[in-house]
Amino acid sequence: MSLIAQTPPPPYYAVIFSSERSDANAGYAEMATRMLALAAAQDGFLGVESARNELGITVSYWRDLAAIRQWKANLEHLEAQQQGRALWYLRYKTRIALVERDYQHEL
Amino acid sequence: MSLIAQTPPPPYYAVIFSSERSDANAGYAEMATRMLALAAAQDGFLGVESARNELGITVSYWRDLAAIRQWKANLEHLEAQQQGRALWYLRYKTRIALVERDYQHEL
Repeated sequence: MSLIAQTPPPPYYAVIFSSERSDANAGYAEMATRMLALAAAQDGFLGVESARNELGITVSYWRDLAAIRQWKANLEHLEAQQQGRALWYLRYKTRIALVERDYQHEL
Repeated sequence: MSLIAQTPPPPYYAVIFSSERSDANAGYAEMATRMLALAAAQDGFLGVESARNELGITVSYWRDLAAIRQWKANLEHLEAQQQGRALWYLRYKTRIALVERDYQHEL
């Protein structure tokens, strides 16, 4: 199975979340797993890709801005965001971007 | 120093390159380093973020579509793309996206 998100043809939205973690690990993995499940269950969710070394990048894909707004305002997600700022992340940057084109290659 | 790209206020463009590597490593690290230097030297380049586990995600940021087109057509980059398809990548997906908003948090 490919780890690359199988998104529909553009246009759609990407939320690029780039983060540097703190040394605090308590609760982090559980939160990440829970947020993934919660996002995936939400209307308008199209897929997600994630990788981390020193820098972590998670790109989630969404049908439209309304779906992103709804995800951002989800109560459980808001709580995770608050805990993230207090505990797990040194810094992060979130970018909301309209995917205009995509192309792929498979061997 | 932050690993998160210090991009100017939106709008600007993001190229999201998601890839799964093959087992072929010969020449890969040298190519990646060279392409990073080549991109950074190009007009319109705003920054880059990169992480890899099983999946690799590299997001490069650009002033406009013209800068992305120029980078895509760079001869040395074209050669690297060709070698990438033949050797280093099992599959990849490239997404061109207009960053409309961003926000950040720092402890």
